[in-house]
Amino acid sequence: MYFAGVDLGGMGIKTGIIDESLTLCCKTSLPTNPHRGFDKIIADMAESITMLAQGNGIAINQIAGIGIGIPGFAHNGLATAVNLHWFDVPLEAQLKARVNAPVYVDNDATAAAVYEYRLGALAGSRVGVLLTLGTGVGSGIIIDGKPFSGAHGMGGELGHIEIVPDGIPCVCNNRGCLEAYSSASALIRRARMIIMERPESMLYHQTNGDPNNATAKLVFDCAKQGDFLSCAIIDEYVKYLAMGIGSIENILDPDIIAIGGGVAAAGDFLLDKIKIACEGKGVFYGKKYSDIRLAAGGNDAGIAGAAMLSLH
Amino acid sequence: MYFAGVDLGGMGIKTGIIDESLTLCCKTSLPTNPHRGFDKIIADMAESITMLAQGNGIAINQIAGIGIGIPGFAHNGLATAVNLHWFDVPLEAQLKARVNAPVYVDNDATAAAVYEYRLGALAGSRVGVLLTLGTGVGSGIIIDGKPFSGAHGMGGELGHIEIVPDGIPCVCNNRGCLEAYSSASALIRRARMIIMERPESMLYHQTNGDPNNATAKLVFDCAKQGDFLSCAIIDEYVKYLAMGIGSIENILDPDIIAIGGGVAAAGDFLLDKIKIACEGKGVFYGKKYSDIRLAAGGNDAGIAGAAMLSLH
Repeated sequence: MYFAGVDLGGMGIKTGIIDESLTLCCKTSLPTNPHRGFDKIIADMAESITMLAQGNGIAINQIAGIGIGIPGFAHNGLATAVNLHWFDVPLEAQLKARVNAPVYVDNDATAAAVYEYRLGALAGSRVGVLLTLGTGVGSGIIIDGKPFSGAHGMGGELGHIEIVPDGIPCVCNNRGCLEAYSSASALIRRARMIIMERPESMLYHQTNGDPNNATAKLVFDCAKQGDFLSCAIIDEYVKYLAMGIGSIENILDPDIIAIGGGVAAAGDFLLDKIKIACEGKGVFYGKKYSDIRLAAGGNDAGIAGAAMLSLH
Repeated sequence: MYFAGVDLGGMGIKTGIIDESLTLCCKTSLPTNPHRGFDKIIADMAESITMLAQGNGIAINQIAGIGIGIPGFAHNGLATAVNLHWFDVPLEAQLKARVNAPVYVDNDATAAAVYEYRLGALAGSRVGVLLTLGTGVGSGIIIDGKPFSGAHGMGGELGHIEIVPDGIPCVCNNRGCLEAYSSASALIRRARMIIMERPESMLYHQTNGDPNNATAKLVFDCAKQGDFLSCAIIDEYVKYLAMGIGSIENILDPDIIAIGGGVAAAGDFLLDKIKIACEGKGVFYGKKYSDIRLAAGGNDAGIAGAAMLSLH
């Protein structure tokens, strides 16, 4: 028995097949080209799965389920993903009609959380949360081994916890969201301000004064060398992130919170700061809240996690 | 078959028994006197249940379960309630030893949410949240018919979502918690400031200038008469409350959010303002998020809800 997974993004349709031991047997990818409309994208998904199976000696009826991680949410089989211009697209029905297998659609960060639960940092958790700190702040919630996305599939958007009244405008059109303070984009925004305003700074010199050269990695690299302004950016970043994590602890009380995404490449340097900033955020003093860890992640976590949506 | 419920507070031990139709058959109450230590309080609970059963013709072996709502949390049968000076008290084991029935302990607001799910405003929800706006902000979460309190029993503390960086100190020792802005106490704090600073105000005249006479009801009564300052207090109150509700929607995506507690006595006047303030807080524009309603509540919801902890 095998399970197919599709990690659907604005750039690519990444498809793979895992076996019963959860090992990724094969994978492929195609450009998404979102403007061509959903029918063609769904047809490409179906063809990718069929071709991948055929090319690897897997009979199509051996595929027991297809999971799809989308940059949005699904409810009753209908998919909404703003970046793809998808609104209530009948993804489940159309894919099922083309490849005769059960289809499970969920948010891409939720699929990544399923991967962490099965093979990564959330293994063994009763309540596990993955926070991905990238262009945005994504997240997935696992409760009792199952992905949790709320009553209409729109839950688990932890990046949109509102942490600052009348705060920085967020891409979601609300203001003051965690994502507006704790995404890689937010970190880069701060670095750009320093580069533009402080020509004597390490960040200015390392970027040749061009704000477009700022990256999250650069800020961490400078901070690790002790640069005061880079440390200040990161301290502020962590302060807001800890507000969000504290709220997650007081709402969901996870036993494990995994930190993933590009920013998590900063490793223990970041993790240690997060742990310190989160101390005392839980209501019950002196009690053990979440174990905060780095996510296992990896390039194929999106595909494999999507495939694992079939497992629960 | 019957189920006993205990609503344990700092002031009283309220005990009752419900039948299979979930009707409260009988109830009683005793003072808690928290300083006498937990053994005596647990002995009183057991005796209350036994006496109540006997006095109402219920054989003790007809009591299929005992639920207890505590002003704190329980994990592995151990109860922690700061106001009672209880830390890891073996409540489940000690009560079970005295009354031979399964014992279920949970947070009191969680017990109230179970009541709302069975007989009140959360009926029919897949993901239901009760927010109680009283001295503090309590809450309970019901997922798929079961109370959800996280991995260690410390979840569902929605009053401690952190909504303001470096905000007002909260009783939990953190700062900027929802409770510090959206409890009845927070509303009264604002009213007291007006009374002390604005002798021309309606609030001043209605309280004879004594800040200690301020109540949440008075602020709503004045606002309903169009008093500008009272309306301003409530608008601010609702603004912060909506931040919390928006975060709850983006994390848990409940189909129903019920608003209870003393402040909810303001009824539709408050509810309508909350609904307007929450519009657009969800990430996915134009999608239907939670139905926000007034809780059914009632005096015995705490006892009955505790008894219903046995039901899942």
